[in-house]
Amino acid sequence: MSEPRLVEVRRNVLKQNDMIARALRERFRGAGAYVVSLVSSPGSGKTTFLERTLTELQPKYRVAALVGDLATENDAVRLARSKAPVKQITTGTLCHLEAAMIEKALEGWDLHQIDFLFIENVGNLVCPSSYDLGENLRLVLMSVTEGEDKPLKYPTIFNSADVAVVTKNDLATAVEFDWAAAEANIQAVRPGMQIFRLSAKTGEGMSGCLEFLGQRLAEQRTPAQTS
Amino acid sequence: MSEPRLVEVRRNVLKQNDMIARALRERFRGAGAYVVSLVSSPGSGKTTFLERTLTELQPKYRVAALVGDLATENDAVRLARSKAPVKQITTGTLCHLEAAMIEKALEGWDLHQIDFLFIENVGNLVCPSSYDLGENLRLVLMSVTEGEDKPLKYPTIFNSADVAVVTKNDLATAVEFDWAAAEANIQAVRPGMQIFRLSAKTGEGMSGCLEFLGQRLAEQRTPAQTS
Repeated sequence: MSEPRLVEVRRNVLKQNDMIARALRERFRGAGAYVVSLVSSPGSGKTTFLERTLTELQPKYRVAALVGDLATENDAVRLARSKAPVKQITTGTLCHLEAAMIEKALEGWDLHQIDFLFIENVGNLVCPSSYDLGENLRLVLMSVTEGEDKPLKYPTIFNSADVAVVTKNDLATAVEFDWAAAEANIQAVRPGMQIFRLSAKTGEGMSGCLEFLGQRLAEQRTPAQTS
Repeated sequence: MSEPRLVEVRRNVLKQNDMIARALRERFRGAGAYVVSLVSSPGSGKTTFLERTLTELQPKYRVAALVGDLATENDAVRLARSKAPVKQITTGTLCHLEAAMIEKALEGWDLHQIDFLFIENVGNLVCPSSYDLGENLRLVLMSVTEGEDKPLKYPTIFNSADVAVVTKNDLATAVEFDWAAAEANIQAVRPGMQIFRLSAKTGEGMSGCLEFLGQRLAEQRTPAQTS
């Protein structure tokens, strides 16, 4: 089992991460950039979702993306097809992104020239949950092929996220996906969580999600009159 | 980024894990039990594969399973339908099983009464790779729905495994799965790796994999004459 000393050292790493994340959040706010991070298990369709998101938002917004993986530049190459600025972060053996990696990857980018910055985390339903990256919104994606029970099995990551996105809806019939069960499981773990159901492959359901992001950006830029 | 001190403490945890794993391996060998562990991302079909494996092996072999998850007893409940002895290990926030958890979960079980012990790890393509559980064989599963690039993106876990199992082959056409690319990617990361391609849902391809396990058990029990 993990030793108490490991837990203590890990706590210090997290504390340091939170300080950097807080500074990042301030920078994003000051520059007017809205930052959305994506977490999910490997292969649930983060990159396909992100590629379509970058492409569809671009006529109206200036978008950019950072993408984390243990190895390969594959995702950055895929996302670059959208013509948006993209940087790959390779983590080696580390199962999550940390705020310091985001800070370093942003060197040379002018955040004032970005409306939406997307951060695609390493495919992992456990490790990324504890690491604040300074984002405004965290999306947790789950594909219909993964099974309806994932929220119950990985409650921490669903709790650390703001919005759930159910992907690969084009395969729902083939896998006999039980939407009511999936929805109930998400709500059981995180009552009131907003859920989008879509297929980034066919484009079905994308517009609702993208409109939601547009609203969030507008809200951030218009300070509430009363609160 | 992770501090050097964290790396050092982690190394000690791994060293301790390896000692327990070595002792477990000796116990398994002494009892004649063949131990197979399963690693994969969440939702790639470990439990469905294991349920069918337990059911199909039972007429001929005595089988048992340990199954790891952060939370819920769902998988143990599913696997218990096979009538095999099953124990759930819940890891809390830990993204992998450790040898000490296996040791503890085995309390009260007579390993001499088991031909095959299966250990289903937490759904994660990163963390489990470093932890030896004393198993004889490690299977890494990837489903056709996850995309062909997973071996390149998670090379460490493919390197730590002995055999690859491509699951959900019934969905291969629906997701336009590129078998040649997947095979080439596995071989690029781990040249010569044996690969089984199957659907645990329809049963297609299961027999080849189960026969392979039967051979491995037989080999373990028949010490090689020359080596």
